[in-house]
Amino acid sequence: MVEISGGWQEKVCLKRETQDRALAIVTDNNLADIDDSLTEIFFQEALARAGELDNYRKEHGNVIGPLHGVPVTLKDQFNVKGYDSTLGYVSRTFSPAVEDAVLVALLKKLGAVILAKTNLPQSIMWCETENPLWGLTTNPSCKDYTPGGSTGGEAALLSLHGSLLGWGTDIGGSIRIPAHMMGLYGLKPSSSRFPYQGVPVSIEGQDYVPSSVGPLTRNLPSLITVMKELIQLEPWKHDSRCVPVPWREEIFQKFRSEPLTIGLLTDDGVVRPHPPITRVLLSLVEKLRGAGHDVVEWNSNLHAECIQVMDEFYTADGGEDIRRDVLAGGEPFLPHVEALVNRGQPISVYEYWQLNKRKVALQQAYLKKWNSIKSSKTGKQVDIVLMPPMPHTAVPHRACRWVGYTKIWNVLDYSALVIPAGRVSSLDGGTPWNHTARNALDGWNTMLWTQEKKKMIELGLPVGVQIAGRKLEEEKVLAVGTVINDLLR
Amino acid sequence: MVEISGGWQEKVCLKRETQDRALAIVTDNNLADIDDSLTEIFFQEALARAGELDNYRKEHGNVIGPLHGVPVTLKDQFNVKGYDSTLGYVSRTFSPAVEDAVLVALLKKLGAVILAKTNLPQSIMWCETENPLWGLTTNPSCKDYTPGGSTGGEAALLSLHGSLLGWGTDIGGSIRIPAHMMGLYGLKPSSSRFPYQGVPVSIEGQDYVPSSVGPLTRNLPSLITVMKELIQLEPWKHDSRCVPVPWREEIFQKFRSEPLTIGLLTDDGVVRPHPPITRVLLSLVEKLRGAGHDVVEWNSNLHAECIQVMDEFYTADGGEDIRRDVLAGGEPFLPHVEALVNRGQPISVYEYWQLNKRKVALQQAYLKKWNSIKSSKTGKQVDIVLMPPMPHTAVPHRACRWVGYTKIWNVLDYSALVIPAGRVSSLDGGTPWNHTARNALDGWNTMLWTQEKKKMIELGLPVGVQIAGRKLEEEKVLAVGTVINDLLR
Repeated sequence: MVEISGGWQEKVCLKRETQDRALAIVTDNNLADIDDSLTEIFFQEALARAGELDNYRKEHGNVIGPLHGVPVTLKDQFNVKGYDSTLGYVSRTFSPAVEDAVLVALLKKLGAVILAKTNLPQSIMWCETENPLWGLTTNPSCKDYTPGGSTGGEAALLSLHGSLLGWGTDIGGSIRIPAHMMGLYGLKPSSSRFPYQGVPVSIEGQDYVPSSVGPLTRNLPSLITVMKELIQLEPWKHDSRCVPVPWREEIFQKFRSEPLTIGLLTDDGVVRPHPPITRVLLSLVEKLRGAGHDVVEWNSNLHAECIQVMDEFYTADGGEDIRRDVLAGGEPFLPHVEALVNRGQPISVYEYWQLNKRKVALQQAYLKKWNSIKSSKTGKQVDIVLMPPMPHTAVPHRACRWVGYTKIWNVLDYSALVIPAGRVSSLDGGTPWNHTARNALDGWNTMLWTQEKKKMIELGLPVGVQIAGRKLEEEKVLAVGTVINDLLR
Repeated sequence: MVEISGGWQEKVCLKRETQDRALAIVTDNNLADIDDSLTEIFFQEALARAGELDNYRKEHGNVIGPLHGVPVTLKDQFNVKGYDSTLGYVSRTFSPAVEDAVLVALLKKLGAVILAKTNLPQSIMWCETENPLWGLTTNPSCKDYTPGGSTGGEAALLSLHGSLLGWGTDIGGSIRIPAHMMGLYGLKPSSSRFPYQGVPVSIEGQDYVPSSVGPLTRNLPSLITVMKELIQLEPWKHDSRCVPVPWREEIFQKFRSEPLTIGLLTDDGVVRPHPPITRVLLSLVEKLRGAGHDVVEWNSNLHAECIQVMDEFYTADGGEDIRRDVLAGGEPFLPHVEALVNRGQPISVYEYWQLNKRKVALQQAYLKKWNSIKSSKTGKQVDIVLMPPMPHTAVPHRACRWVGYTKIWNVLDYSALVIPAGRVSSLDGGTPWNHTARNALDGWNTMLWTQEKKKMIELGLPVGVQIAGRKLEEEKVLAVGTVINDLLR
């Protein structure tokens, strides 16, 4: 770590100057749109690497690997040798990584060119993207709106075609929420599928509710290809937390070609989704039924308990981990981060074990629930659950309140994919939304629609759907994603 | 829970009386040998079930499943509906399980007949078998010796042919140590392979160093069959902690038929194994080399750090979990349990997370170590590590001190198999053991040999070897076990 005199603002200035210099080497593009999504920038190295790859191809007549020359970006958590992994914390600046994250090394092996790293929120534990170090990441469709988070810089950049493949992490929806808001494809695999080694994170070591590494793309075949190619490099031989589960093509093919049994959850009972979210979902359901798939009702039983338990994990340390990082840097707390770290006293390790027993019991109860919900027509269990990723589209900055639709799959460590399924349209504005608020969160969400619907319709904001499978069922989730994607397009 | 007046002794009396009555229904066998290994006894139900199975076979002309009528016993942790899972704690008596553990249900589905449950040590965290509730389990070869632990009742019973298949748990060697001491086969799979649901354990909820469920048998083909049949029932559909990894016959066949690269660890640098342990191991190595396998030197780098970190997990709660259970029952603490619960103050959840980060870093370092050790002849990485399970055979009661040879694979969550490989013999007594103690533990072990070698030779105590593979490599470990077993017999 380099010693910088002066306060946190000085470090911020130095980092942003470095960023400006790195951006300046590319002059033939309009970069103003993308610079609020970026943190560390590697354009110089990327150009050099691209040159090497061109030479390789000239010399050998073939590509170096399946991602030869593909530009890739990463949320500013992934270690890239020689650069900071700031996590949005001032305290982590001027402390460059000594080696590449396992994922970065594998991507390079496949031929990818790493362009830059992207912004994330202070503490990471938030579904928008802002921190005092790099500032606020805005939604390219509308600067007053968030692109979501925590992988928000990545989503904004991808939506602007600033990258072909983005990487994020997800412990509550941090890949799926920005994918949904920016009209992208985003996969949260079960946590042991992709390598997390060399990816520092806040509340690191917690692990009872694990964070997952996953990709974001603008189309589904790219996402599937990347997944397959990475798994074929056997990440479990490079990361001790990965499980030796190869790419299972037979599962992928089976669920692409057979009639599906789909569990449908339209409303989690806490926050009712805005009209466009429900319209897009139900329109898809009609198409699925029309194509011969069986759609059965899912329910949100156990969701509230699961979410309550996982929230307790996040602050089981009384907020010490996040508080230390912010205080070490000296920057101000964002209000929601301050609220998070002050949510309660730390619990004891004994109590922490009891909390984990509750989590395990809930996971087991959810497995029994999954086994018990069957089609009345065929008697089959559901293959996947189809549901909204969020109760709303992109919203004004600092307006997000409820991520229960994504979080549920983190506490269960299931696999979940978000794909774009439609847009807010004039169809959604015709009739008033007669919904009486169930609680403060639901009231907030109702108010958001009333206040913002005109703008949301004008902007034609993207609407995604979420496809969830059981633990380590990524192949199935991607296959069903392909079926749905084909129906929609 | 039934309210029993009087102190803990009264509950103990009632439990033992129940046991005597349950034993009394079988009169045509000498049960005196086995009764110190048993806890809960289901002979009546077992006879009824056997009758049903006989009828089924008469009626249908075939067996109900691959374990039709196979008598099975279980360490007294596995829930069997209607019976206590005492864990050796008085506080857990008179509190019968309301449903079968997932493993028990799967075994019944395969046709097994559950006979009884078996003894384990107070706190479970010990490699011998004694508690104030059920008493001391002795080694059938010599009542003054331990059969090992914590799955000691199971091992004693199996060695007496009191069961065909036993089930234990292992968080530091608790399957492998009694298997080694009693001349049995014992498998500790990675923790997510077999279902732990419905198996209460001490320090439950800890999970950062996970306990594994695994089988013990008197021969290897039985163990392999049971493993295969259980995995084919897809335990991941019944237990949320299991991973969907099917039985991989291709891996099993590959490592049964190819020349192997074997890492050899003879001494962990802390406690030097007794002469018979080393002799049996080196004699096997000669046979392996003679059969064309490549044996390369392994080392104990990282073992000490791994063991230090895992010990901190066990008492991160300041011993509260175990203390509560003992105090709630009112029975006395065994001296080593008292020492364990008083080992130190609880740490905070924040510190606990830091400890977990150290563990993850060590797991990653060990993975890199595994990748880096290669045969100088072929350049190949080792397939498995071959080493002693313990630095000694069975020893007098309360004489065990060091389980570093087994523990290392728990903190890494690797797969490890113990198989019987020889016996203490007059070959070991000929020359004095010129070994200068390195430390107090090593001094203790040296003294044990000096004092006990005459008796150990007379008894011809079993000596096992341990075969360790990486995470979820059970098929490989069993295949190599088969190769070694064939060479030895």
